[in-house]
Amino acid sequence: MKANIELLEHKAYNLRVLSLKATTQAGSGHPTSALSAADIVSALFFHAMHYNSADQYDINNDRFVLSKGHAAPVLYAAWKEVGLLTQEQVLTLREFNSIFEGHPTARFAYNEAATGSLGIGLSIGLGMALSARISKHHFYTYVLMGDSEMAEGSIWEACEVAAYYKVNNLIGIIDVNRLGQSTQTIEGHNIEDYKAKLDAFGWHTFTINGHNMLEIVNALDAARTVKNKPSIIIARTYKGYGLEGIENEENYHGRAFSKEQLQELLDKLEKRFYKAAHAKFDNIQKKTETDFKKLVPEVINLPSPVYKLDSKIATRKAYGEALKVAGQSSQKVISLDAEVKNSTFSEIFEQSFPERFFQCFVAEQNMIGMATGFARMGFIPFSSTFGAFMTRAHDQIRMAAIGQEPLRLAGSHCGVSIGQDGPSQMALEDIALMRAVPNSVVLYPSDATSTYKLLNLMLNYDSGISYLRLTREATPVLYNSQEEFKIGGCKIVKQSQNDQLCIIAAGITVFEALKAYNILKEQNILVSIIDLYSVKPMDTETIKNIVIKSQNKVVTVEDHFIQGGLGEAVCYELRNLNIKIELLAVKELSRSGKPEELLAYHKIDTNAIIETAKKLIKS
Amino acid sequence: MKANIELLEHKAYNLRVLSLKATTQAGSGHPTSALSAADIVSALFFHAMHYNSADQYDINNDRFVLSKGHAAPVLYAAWKEVGLLTQEQVLTLREFNSIFEGHPTARFAYNEAATGSLGIGLSIGLGMALSARISKHHFYTYVLMGDSEMAEGSIWEACEVAAYYKVNNLIGIIDVNRLGQSTQTIEGHNIEDYKAKLDAFGWHTFTINGHNMLEIVNALDAARTVKNKPSIIIARTYKGYGLEGIENEENYHGRAFSKEQLQELLDKLEKRFYKAAHAKFDNIQKKTETDFKKLVPEVINLPSPVYKLDSKIATRKAYGEALKVAGQSSQKVISLDAEVKNSTFSEIFEQSFPERFFQCFVAEQNMIGMATGFARMGFIPFSSTFGAFMTRAHDQIRMAAIGQEPLRLAGSHCGVSIGQDGPSQMALEDIALMRAVPNSVVLYPSDATSTYKLLNLMLNYDSGISYLRLTREATPVLYNSQEEFKIGGCKIVKQSQNDQLCIIAAGITVFEALKAYNILKEQNILVSIIDLYSVKPMDTETIKNIVIKSQNKVVTVEDHFIQGGLGEAVCYELRNLNIKIELLAVKELSRSGKPEELLAYHKIDTNAIIETAKKLIKS
Repeated sequence: MKANIELLEHKAYNLRVLSLKATTQAGSGHPTSALSAADIVSALFFHAMHYNSADQYDINNDRFVLSKGHAAPVLYAAWKEVGLLTQEQVLTLREFNSIFEGHPTARFAYNEAATGSLGIGLSIGLGMALSARISKHHFYTYVLMGDSEMAEGSIWEACEVAAYYKVNNLIGIIDVNRLGQSTQTIEGHNIEDYKAKLDAFGWHTFTINGHNMLEIVNALDAARTVKNKPSIIIARTYKGYGLEGIENEENYHGRAFSKEQLQELLDKLEKRFYKAAHAKFDNIQKKTETDFKKLVPEVINLPSPVYKLDSKIATRKAYGEALKVAGQSSQKVISLDAEVKNSTFSEIFEQSFPERFFQCFVAEQNMIGMATGFARMGFIPFSSTFGAFMTRAHDQIRMAAIGQEPLRLAGSHCGVSIGQDGPSQMALEDIALMRAVPNSVVLYPSDATSTYKLLNLMLNYDSGISYLRLTREATPVLYNSQEEFKIGGCKIVKQSQNDQLCIIAAGITVFEALKAYNILKEQNILVSIIDLYSVKPMDTETIKNIVIKSQNKVVTVEDHFIQGGLGEAVCYELRNLNIKIELLAVKELSRSGKPEELLAYHKIDTNAIIETAKKLIKS
Repeated sequence: MKANIELLEHKAYNLRVLSLKATTQAGSGHPTSALSAADIVSALFFHAMHYNSADQYDINNDRFVLSKGHAAPVLYAAWKEVGLLTQEQVLTLREFNSIFEGHPTARFAYNEAATGSLGIGLSIGLGMALSARISKHHFYTYVLMGDSEMAEGSIWEACEVAAYYKVNNLIGIIDVNRLGQSTQTIEGHNIEDYKAKLDAFGWHTFTINGHNMLEIVNALDAARTVKNKPSIIIARTYKGYGLEGIENEENYHGRAFSKEQLQELLDKLEKRFYKAAHAKFDNIQKKTETDFKKLVPEVINLPSPVYKLDSKIATRKAYGEALKVAGQSSQKVISLDAEVKNSTFSEIFEQSFPERFFQCFVAEQNMIGMATGFARMGFIPFSSTFGAFMTRAHDQIRMAAIGQEPLRLAGSHCGVSIGQDGPSQMALEDIALMRAVPNSVVLYPSDATSTYKLLNLMLNYDSGISYLRLTREATPVLYNSQEEFKIGGCKIVKQSQNDQLCIIAAGITVFEALKAYNILKEQNILVSIIDLYSVKPMDTETIKNIVIKSQNKVVTVEDHFIQGGLGEAVCYELRNLNIKIELLAVKELSRSGKPEELLAYHKIDTNAIIETAKKLIKS
């Protein structure tokens, strides 16, 4: 389609005006960051992108990710210009009841990704672009970045992996307006510096004047013809472009203009862009609103697992096996690995479904960003790495929760029980981190059967992040294939009429608790044991019930730091019950050693349980 | 100094032999990753690096960071070859009582940085290199990286910032052995791909054969003569170099050889490197052991703060002001910013001490890595950004704790009370994350005076990470300049003889609690209020004492997610007291809105406190 430059300039003008009005109305926001991008956004929405504005779910729609989320007003203004929003709606920007938040979130359904933490959009776009490849559709994904965020390493992770996958349907644009929040960027306006880096990273690059509509359009057109490479358009722009005395000046980041200033600025804008301001066009855009009722995903029921009771298998291996069965059950299931597939056993999935397995190399942030993009496109991505290295991507996990994308995460090698590799490889804070994510689910299986069944539950959990905590060592199969598990459930592993105390454990410590049970039983001390495989949400009612029947005495035991872990969560849930409770958990820095030495050192082993239980029973 | 190639080859041979023996003895580890690096490490330790092995504290010593921490055996073997360790010591590798952990930690005092999570060493090295600049010393810092970790974005953050600072005393070496843990790296053996990227990032690059000692030595010599740029040596190597049938083959990552295999491998190694194996040299290295008693840092006492009671000032602003005073009090204090200095007010420090202020741009992982390097060299770096964006660097924070480096962190814009900018900008998980770090301290001041005094405490806290949680909004000054604060303390803000309940708050919620107090008092309901400014460690004794005097009833209120926050911590501390407690905290996804709207929406405002208090008092 030949570009209508006059139309695009007119639309860009309108984007500027509404971005200014909305931020002044809100009394806060980032108008100058919107203005540097207005010409680019106009060219994207009204020339480059192919989409059916009446149907957001049209799988052939091109996609737009605003990585520089602080420029949100220009995104909302664009959808207003598309005809799907009114000016009045956009003018509710940043109000409590408005879906037009300060930085775009999932509450504005046309928005493809929650952004506002910098440097995450390109990874999300990469996931979306690759989803087109698997589903054999041909849409393009556009990602608009700011220049400040090019300092984020996650961007370069995405650059590397995108080039590796030769995704020519991913087109990035950098709005190089030179100015960050408080200072000039490293590169300033030297767009050739970005070009050199991106060339070296294997991208097809364009350098343009980001306020020359013809240059923008030509680059966007050319980018769609590039083969075997992602493309990036490096656009030299001015922050606050169009505002005399403000354009390209420092100290205007994140500052809305007063109502008095606004009228003066709008008057000047109109004079400067007189032709664009007064151009007349028929509204060629549709006004149909998309029906945004959430698509109901299919329920996936995996066949029963086949683990033999008491045989030994690591939960991480059961994860790989269950993931493969999930892949057989649904074409939507994909697997992302951060180059530890032989440790997490996601390689079992890869062997069966190489086309749905994505090697993301040692770059966890980009892996989680990619998963977010895949999830947005309706896929069911399972991302796995060592639980310790999930910390690397916590910002991306946090942002996916704000974006309400149901990430499925699996962290292996959790706890001190990994042994000799030492503390850098031990996840000891992952329960705390994953619990502190809105709508998250934290699952921690002890054996292969429960791992398999919990993975099945994750498949069907669509309301937020779900996290599966996995153990390195092989553990005995505890549950037969008929056992039922549920999100928010627990298992009563031992119970009698004469329990003097309840032990609440999960994962590897369930087996320490069982050993303690046997020894205590020989001493005529009976205790109940709960396998708290669902740490969040928690089956508080069942726990209360068992605890009351266990003389109101509880020992929790976990291979995790005490802070924010299972024990604190139990303490909170049982807070007003007048019980006696003690928490066994890791309370100090760990080290290399044999698993059993470390469980003993940190007092989360059988002996520690027995000793604590006896003390509590006597008290 | 002219290189003695024969000596270096002999030493490299010895490093290989001991790396193999130690991992076989341990029954686990990464011998092949040690072997690809052995020639480089030999050239570093016995030719390139200038250091006084008898005095680790000699400030002129060159420094070595093993970023590929899984090659730990080669590091220990090198120090054995230096003469400071015995073979017997190194052969305790990975044992519980050994300081030679699976990945190097702070327990081996010669080790400059805890590594094992990939991609963090270059940032730490950059901090060390820049510390030489401030302290006007002339040592070089060498960082040995693996090729897999070049996929980590944090590496590229460090590359960018190091080039920006023109640190010619930072020399990186990439051990390009082609093979990752489970698959080939993206670049494989194409060392020119790395060169192109690093050239574009502004580094001086060398490409060499990493098993040709002359090439290694020449590159290392040349790197020391480079001006105004960091240097990097990209060395093509073979994983498992020297081991016939294993060298450059897949499936040997992280696998120690059996005792039977070992002898065969050693025999072959001896044949292949016969000359190096049998070379004879006088031991030219010193054997003096360094005295590793920890240096006792000076205690810094800042002058009294000067905030007027009831005047309004944001704690983030008080942070900037206190940081400046700290900078006046000690030349060791430095400030690192992730391009939000006008939001965290670290710009106040910059204005006074530009030479001790480091702009790290929007790259939080590298900022924390740099701070770790500065801390290692005895500086007192304060790193600040939005609390939400600390999540980006959680792996680096975790690793600094393993490295026992006392990072000082300040996170601004915490909680929903930031308002309109929306959830992406709100730190709501930072207390949970920072609590779950061994030896960490979590401080959360409510007013300017306490901010100032708590920063003074952080200055003198040297045993781990300390975190200062800061609020965006201005709050009234509550404390006069004579008030005393301590790590592990709290303030009893309100107390009477007739308290019916205790409210435990911190930061912004202290003021909501005070408003609730006044309203309740009008209704003849008296309550006590605790300002829990030290969330970790907690002043449990004082709290217990006040709670007992407050009818054993407690409401906690915090602008943070409930999971892992202040309330759960209190629940744990008061677990066996038979009290009634309710927790007010953020329990759902937040959104844009006015601060007061959001405090009300999440039920952490005055009304929620009153309602909950009344219910609890009636119960």
